[in-house]
Amino acid sequence: MAGRTISPNLALDQLVQERIAAGESIVHLGFGESRLPVFGPLKERLAEGADRNAYGPVVGDPATRAAVAGYFARRRLPTDAEQVIVAPGSKPLLMALQLVAGGDTLVALPSWVTYAPQARLAGKTVLGVPIPASCGGVPDPAALRETIRAARVLGHDPKILVLTSPDNPTGTYAPDDLVRELCAIAEEEDLLIVSDEIYRDILHTPGTDLLSPAEVAPRRTVVITGLSKSLALGGWRIGAARFPAGPAGERLRADVASVASEIWSTLAGPMQAVAGYAFAEPPEVRERLAADAALHGAVAAAVHRIMVDAGATCRPPTGAFYVYPDFAPLRGPLAEQGVTDGASLQRHLLEELGVAVLSGHHFGDRPEALRFRAATSMLYGATPAEQRATQQAADPLAVPHVADALTRLEQALAKLPR
Amino acid sequence: MAGRTISPNLALDQLVQERIAAGESIVHLGFGESRLPVFGPLKERLAEGADRNAYGPVVGDPATRAAVAGYFARRRLPTDAEQVIVAPGSKPLLMALQLVAGGDTLVALPSWVTYAPQARLAGKTVLGVPIPASCGGVPDPAALRETIRAARVLGHDPKILVLTSPDNPTGTYAPDDLVRELCAIAEEEDLLIVSDEIYRDILHTPGTDLLSPAEVAPRRTVVITGLSKSLALGGWRIGAARFPAGPAGERLRADVASVASEIWSTLAGPMQAVAGYAFAEPPEVRERLAADAALHGAVAAAVHRIMVDAGATCRPPTGAFYVYPDFAPLRGPLAEQGVTDGASLQRHLLEELGVAVLSGHHFGDRPEALRFRAATSMLYGATPAEQRATQQAADPLAVPHVADALTRLEQALAKLPR
Repeated sequence: MAGRTISPNLALDQLVQERIAAGESIVHLGFGESRLPVFGPLKERLAEGADRNAYGPVVGDPATRAAVAGYFARRRLPTDAEQVIVAPGSKPLLMALQLVAGGDTLVALPSWVTYAPQARLAGKTVLGVPIPASCGGVPDPAALRETIRAARVLGHDPKILVLTSPDNPTGTYAPDDLVRELCAIAEEEDLLIVSDEIYRDILHTPGTDLLSPAEVAPRRTVVITGLSKSLALGGWRIGAARFPAGPAGERLRADVASVASEIWSTLAGPMQAVAGYAFAEPPEVRERLAADAALHGAVAAAVHRIMVDAGATCRPPTGAFYVYPDFAPLRGPLAEQGVTDGASLQRHLLEELGVAVLSGHHFGDRPEALRFRAATSMLYGATPAEQRATQQAADPLAVPHVADALTRLEQALAKLPR
Repeated sequence: MAGRTISPNLALDQLVQERIAAGESIVHLGFGESRLPVFGPLKERLAEGADRNAYGPVVGDPATRAAVAGYFARRRLPTDAEQVIVAPGSKPLLMALQLVAGGDTLVALPSWVTYAPQARLAGKTVLGVPIPASCGGVPDPAALRETIRAARVLGHDPKILVLTSPDNPTGTYAPDDLVRELCAIAEEEDLLIVSDEIYRDILHTPGTDLLSPAEVAPRRTVVITGLSKSLALGGWRIGAARFPAGPAGERLRADVASVASEIWSTLAGPMQAVAGYAFAEPPEVRERLAADAALHGAVAAAVHRIMVDAGATCRPPTGAFYVYPDFAPLRGPLAEQGVTDGASLQRHLLEELGVAVLSGHHFGDRPEALRFRAATSMLYGATPAEQRATQQAADPLAVPHVADALTRLEQALAKLPR
């Protein structure tokens, strides 16, 4: 099994961090991390949870799970604590689902870098389906039907449909009609829906909400969430899953708990204390979430504008902290500089222009596409002090280090051939 | 994939906790957890590490890994930080090794409940080998050779040899000669040794040490450790692995890092701060480790005495916090009460005598054997205050709640038919 590689998102971040530490000037948009400081009350809960050194239940203690259940209930998903499992991040939960659910896995292309490798680790065939023009995170319905049909002809057994909303890498989310159509296909084709909603609390327009597949197809949808994105806690590793009510959901949850008991035992006790507090969403947490979502929206919109000005087409971001431009309009001039695909575009941006992004092919997009993901949350600052200043500013775009990074980005992209 | 179950160790603990909470009087020896309070300085480090919310390197940050390298170097295993991976517990590291190393897996019988299920999750055949009379945690050498030969005849491919020292469930460790003999077999048969040394710092006799397979067969031994046992941090989930130096070891480590990046990303930042402190072993940590090891030894010896007095044969415990009695001498009288195997003995002890233990068959021992594991560390107390009193006592056996539990245990076992 030689030739395994680090997940490209994490690998690029390590590389860029090393080059920045060595003195290079790089606008780092290459890593899907919310660069914001830890919210103060979360630190207090972590310290208060320090006495929790017993293993405790595999699925998480009842109080923590009740808080997560409340979180979902406030999002039109009535939930019992017995439907919840907490874990050290959403990744292990997604992996466990791949291990216990039978059949092959359908993913949108592009989609988050880890879905496909996890499915392959579990011995599954990964069936990729292009996204529609309107948004990312979900397959185009017609293409989904066609892929399922063709896969069955080839002897595959499509059984799991992974949806992401809002999504990574495009920073958009599916409209209600599209969610309903995909759920109808899942019902017709008897698919388990894995709805990754880890960015759900980062919608850019205040007061908007999205439709979860779990509202439409409650018996066949597992919802995954976590605190890594909305509360900038990637390095704390706190995730949660909501399983369907009813016998099939209970069985699936028991199977995931079994795998959990063999792979990771439980979420660390002090982190469960944090989860119990955060998922209960007291007013100060809600305020923090809303303010940060507005920040993510403002900076993503600014980067979107820069990409379009540089000649790309790009879906306007509506959630999360990404934009996913397509430089196809510049294909001719770029080819003259040897830039002919996603990989060479990523390399050109990093080596010639000092901009780190992750090429679309890492997300399963077509290798020849001139697309990449820019993680806009990386612009908030390199130090906690810078990040705090960005977070507290009335206009984040006017904060000097943010404005400076945006200017450097704009100037770098202006050097692309037109 | 219906029929999956929770790891029996964790499942029994959940059951017993619920019954104790409901008012039952149970001497709970059924869970492999060190019931001691969190050492104060570890709590400080956790709180100080709260700002570490970035993902950071998959394998752990360099300072944390350097501390782990120093830990191994002080145990005659010179180690570079580049040979180390830290993770949320030792379980995920053991799982990743099963996923990336080819071939089938040899385990001692009995051995820790999770080795075999992990190997099966990774699609491997588990080849069990009985332990010798002298100690647990390792296969009897002659039986190991015979199992390898027979397995190959049957088309299996034994490639991974899991050793545990000191071990769970017998609370003993292999003498140097036996370790050398097993390493020689590993060399002859080209086996990868996975040496689980999570109990290494819990040796009962002060000043003794054990021989790690990594000293004898350095190029083919991965050492696994963690803070769950020696520092009673099971619920904090901190583990580490040391890979061999040299190209093969580097490749194996890269493969495990790849799996890590897809399943768990990294050890939580605040926990890395804890690991960096604890593995550096400042004087106060060394004192704590030595004092706790003496406590574990005293209580394990007392429980051993009770088991022998009740009619069992039992290896005298030398490490960890377990005893593994064999009630074969009482087989006739027990059979008259319907107790004919490990499962019925476990049930009889819990339902009739109020003593929770885990039957040997859960550890892969022969189902008909009248053996079980008693986790003696469960006697230290139900509350942090009780645990602290036990930990600070000059004679832990004289602490009222410990003495009371030992008396209840003695009286319960005295009711076994002779």
